Amino acid sequence: MEAKWVETTLRVRYAETDAMGVVYYGRYLEWFEVGRSEFMRVGGFPYSRLEAEGVFLPVVEVRCRYRRPARYDDLVTVRTAVAAVTPVRLTIVYEIRREGELLAEGSTEHAFVDAQGRPLNLQRTRPDLWQVLVAVVSGT
Amino acid sequence: MEAKWVETTLRVRYAETDAMGVVYYGRYLEWFEVGRSEFMRVGGFPYSRLEAEGVFLPVVEVRCRYRRPARYDDLVTVRTAVAAVTPVRLTIVYEIRREGELLAEGSTEHAFVDAQGRPLNLQRTRPDLWQVLVAVVSGT
Amino acid sequence: MEAKWVETTLRVRYAETDAMGVVYYGRYLEWFEVGRSEFMRVGGFPYSRLEAEGVFLPVVEVRCRYRRPARYDDLVTVRTAVAAVTPVRLTIVYEIRREGELLAEGSTEHAFVDAQGRPLNLQRTRPDLWQVLVAVVSGT
Amino acid sequence: MEAKWVETTLRVRYAETDAMGVVYYGRYLEWFEVGRSEFMRVGGFPYSRLEAEGVFLPVVEVRCRYRRPARYDDLVTVRTAVAAVTPVRLTIVYEIRREGELLAEGSTEHAFVDAQGRPLNLQRTRPDLWQVLVAVVSGT
Repeated sequence: MEAKWVETTLRVRYAETDAMGVVYYGRYLEWFEVGRSEFMRVGGFPYSRLEAEGVFLPVVEVRCRYRRPARYDDLVTVRTAVAAVTPVRLTIVYEIRREGELLAEGSTEHAFVDAQGRPLNLQRTRPDLWQVLVAVVSGT
Repeated sequence: MEAKWVETTLRVRYAETDAMGVVYYGRYLEWFEVGRSEFMRVGGFPYSRLEAEGVFLPVVEVRCRYRRPARYDDLVTVRTAVAAVTPVRLTIVYEIRREGELLAEGSTEHAFVDAQGRPLNLQRTRPDLWQVLVAVVSGT
Repeated sequence: MEAKWVETTLRVRYAETDAMGVVYYGRYLEWFEVGRSEFMRVGGFPYSRLEAEGVFLPVVEVRCRYRRPARYDDLVTVRTAVAAVTPVRLTIVYEIRREGELLAEGSTEHAFVDAQGRPLNLQRTRPDLWQVLVAVVSGT
Repeated sequence: MEAKWVETTLRVRYAETDAMGVVYYGRYLEWFEVGRSEFMRVGGFPYSRLEAEGVFLPVVEVRCRYRRPARYDDLVTVRTAVAAVTPVRLTIVYEIRREGELLAEGSTEHAFVDAQGRPLNLQRTRPDLWQVLVAVVSGT
């Protein structure tokens, strides 16, 4: 699978900074979320529709490496791609850049679960959604 | 109704500060929430139980006046009291203090609603909860 | 002074929602901040430049009235206008709308202070900035 | 070096939950921060004092694995230990538990930097602080 990157741009909020004068490390995880939301929307299958279908994608693991600080009022670009998808897991990777310069990079791993939080094999239980998701992810 | 004040103490998190080196103004609203949660718990009727009964208390109005900044690692006390309760509304007031000094003060007004967000007259639809709530609020 | 309204549009983040399924009440204060940042930027005088000049605008009072809930993935518009400006205070008003419908409205009052948090009479201490600010605010 | 674990307990705030009804994944990073702040304080050397000495500890990498969701009003325990310390890096590990059950686990890696964000070799530039820090970390 060749990676398809989707980009979205954010303006850094004062609320996102901390007393060190830079963006608080936990806030990058919100930007990752914005990135994957846009990835899904651009692919024609917003995450909100997935939830409406009774499928949820909680994060089971996150990793982030911080290279340079972002600051208030910076315009940052979140680049998002899907690294891997299986019937039970989705792995997404992210880059945060400011004018091309890499500020942070990371990844999230997601499980497919139902509204009660039980793990789903998406391919088996919802083959219709599985096909759409694979298409979105592969950009076809 | 004579006001009963409930106090709870918080340690300021780095995440709560901003680039001005002080606590971000929006974060005080989380502290108000901590204050009213403790108020309910101390009264023997945690807010989570109210939700389990199908009654929710969304905020319909908030006001906060900021007098002095709070900083990372400060120990702040949230003082909470109920200013007024009617079958459709609850008004709560708050003070944020550090070693007695007033940092901020404010209020929230809440509506009683059901799980679908429809307004409730608590006294009429749930007289059992109404009686408990009045007892909690009046400290009897 | 006739009000000049500046609009900016936000996509609601999952991070901004809470267990009631709607946006947490404290998060609207971040949106107000986004609104006033855009107001300043559109006027040609970004808030970051004000800080670079040694002038800060901490919030001394906030008020917000919540009319209808915002939800994940909603596109909301923040409308911002300056209600009043004096040499020591700035009052800003906000409306949060979704497809025209009013979700929330509020105001913030700001003091002019220096880097040490001491109150400033901007007109007296920094007449240059005062003139620029009045022009930005009045939209001239 | 044998790990010394420090525990601190938190009450989950409504603000920390999201529309899935559980704590938002980014919020765990605040709890990690609370954990390491308490670790330092318990060791007699609060992080705020380190900053007052001109030494900062920005996060250069974070990892978190989510095992079970935390919910509003849960009492969760943050367990914190130092996994490694060198003159230029500090690695801290965390466990989030509820009544013993593991909800999440993770780690942060920190660099020593000065107020301008330049990397410091703490042992060489501030041998006094280095000795104190090693003592805090090793619990001696």
